[in-house]
Amino acid sequence: MAKITLRLIADTLGISVATASKALKDYPDISQKTKRDVKELAATLKYKPNSFAQSLRNQESKIIGLIIPEIVHHFFANIIHGVIKAAEKEGYLVITLQSDESYENEKKQIELLLEKNVDGILISLAEDTVNFKHIKAIIDEGIPVVLFDKISKLIKCSQVVIDDRKAAFEATKYLIDSGCKTIAHVRGPLKPQTTIHRFLGYKDAIEAHGMIYDKALVFEADHLSYEDGRKVAKEILASNQNIDGIFAFTDLLATGLLVKLKEAGVMIPEEVSIIGFSNWFLSKITSPTLSTVNQPGLEMGMAAFKLLFEELSNKKNKVPTEFVTVEIPTNLVIRNSTR
Amino acid sequence: MAKITLRLIADTLGISVATASKALKDYPDISQKTKRDVKELAATLKYKPNSFAQSLRNQESKIIGLIIPEIVHHFFANIIHGVIKAAEKEGYLVITLQSDESYENEKKQIELLLEKNVDGILISLAEDTVNFKHIKAIIDEGIPVVLFDKISKLIKCSQVVIDDRKAAFEATKYLIDSGCKTIAHVRGPLKPQTTIHRFLGYKDAIEAHGMIYDKALVFEADHLSYEDGRKVAKEILASNQNIDGIFAFTDLLATGLLVKLKEAGVMIPEEVSIIGFSNWFLSKITSPTLSTVNQPGLEMGMAAFKLLFEELSNKKNKVPTEFVTVEIPTNLVIRNSTR
Repeated sequence: MAKITLRLIADTLGISVATASKALKDYPDISQKTKRDVKELAATLKYKPNSFAQSLRNQESKIIGLIIPEIVHHFFANIIHGVIKAAEKEGYLVITLQSDESYENEKKQIELLLEKNVDGILISLAEDTVNFKHIKAIIDEGIPVVLFDKISKLIKCSQVVIDDRKAAFEATKYLIDSGCKTIAHVRGPLKPQTTIHRFLGYKDAIEAHGMIYDKALVFEADHLSYEDGRKVAKEILASNQNIDGIFAFTDLLATGLLVKLKEAGVMIPEEVSIIGFSNWFLSKITSPTLSTVNQPGLEMGMAAFKLLFEELSNKKNKVPTEFVTVEIPTNLVIRNSTR
Repeated sequence: MAKITLRLIADTLGISVATASKALKDYPDISQKTKRDVKELAATLKYKPNSFAQSLRNQESKIIGLIIPEIVHHFFANIIHGVIKAAEKEGYLVITLQSDESYENEKKQIELLLEKNVDGILISLAEDTVNFKHIKAIIDEGIPVVLFDKISKLIKCSQVVIDDRKAAFEATKYLIDSGCKTIAHVRGPLKPQTTIHRFLGYKDAIEAHGMIYDKALVFEADHLSYEDGRKVAKEILASNQNIDGIFAFTDLLATGLLVKLKEAGVMIPEEVSIIGFSNWFLSKITSPTLSTVNQPGLEMGMAAFKLLFEELSNKKNKVPTEFVTVEIPTNLVIRNSTR
């Protein structure tokens, strides 16, 4: 099939390519007759403006990149949905990539996206990304970047976050206020800022309520899976510390804890209250249902695109962008796993 | 920032653009010295080959489109992951769009993808898509399309499916073999082929085992949500039919049924066995855990990309593609919600 080009249309009508292009775009200096002729022929030939040629001219692809650590993940699936939804409304399409929490993949994927001339990139940093040169480099080249959820304050760009420390403080405070005396925290791996902030929020709350922070009450999960929650539950049972409240780093860990403790005959919440983090769908399904911190992924995704879009608009209008950090509010969702 | 072009590099070195291009691509007819000069200058200037210009030349964008009904959905998230993973390996990137089960969105999104010159499109049809002109039209234009999961046999293209009818037969047979005498089916809305096939598989199994098919035992859920499962559970309780086994269209419905029946004092599985469909993550978490049909999303996503990739390669080599329907095997996962 021969490619239908604007030149073919112009040649057929005996006009210039520029005139044909203007006619399609309804420029005022083109006669009604020419416009009608061009449009009719374009329709007949099923002419599609070549977006590559167009993009080449105005240096805009209207495609953005989105790099997240994991796709099959309730929170990140909500993020993807939020980004795609907000982007489509403004005429942008989204290429999604999964870093698998790997710095090497993240670096490679940024290169792949640049090769496709994306207009900007949204990133939630991989767990083992501690060197930010690859991101700083593209920002320096003038490619707008917005970070969300897993961010770094060392990177100068707009960011979308929640206040992990405050949210963790409130979750722990709820356990204290409802009568828990010996409260454990199940944290994730050491590095990501979210782990550190949720741990600090737990510690703040303990100390702010006249309790003594005890390192022995902090358990570390290798990963953040359901199975890890079950594993830590065994450690908690073996530790004989009379733990009567647990604040877990994520709902998945909390669910593993809840199911394993129940299997061991522990009454939830009568003997042990459990509170998770993220408000995954499954927290409505567990038995008892899981109290948790609601982390609004859809809103975060939409906010991240909005910041990127503003920056892209500024760039087009040659206006400098002032980087901002947008904080999306969280809230406690109290269900039946807490007293 | 001035754009670094191949012309700039060529002009700087006093060679032609063609020579500069060949030098970068290591053509044998270019001298080692020229290759070294061009590559060094390109590195110094941080030259990036313009993918739009490249694509314009070889009419390939190395981007494909993926349209699914819903992103925040365990099965489809697995599909997305499978597609992106398989595509990245072959150097393709994926633009994902959500149709929200709407024919109008699906039509619009196909147009959006074509404007970006995607090389091919993967689609799981929206629930209310019953007219296939929009898909046939792009196939006729020579754009490779592969359908998966929600497909139509009326569209001539490669497809990736599971055998819903056989899988539903096996699930129902399991209930019969384990002693259930009055088996209900909770089906989804009438239209999609998956609903029809799973219903027929249920009916086949009932009739193949000397039981009488009874319309009154088939309940229809408006949507496929957890809340709908709870609603249908109330209808089942009110129907007084001594139902002792339920085959539900999806795990979400099954989970709603399970939780609501338990709340009403029904012992699962002693009084009622329940079996779902899809093997969502949550089926491991319910109490009791949910027996279900494993529908392998990751494998389906990878298979769908593989078929598209073969068709794209054939197209490049001007070899016709013979359309095939690949069936991905399912298997029963027996947990604790069945006797």
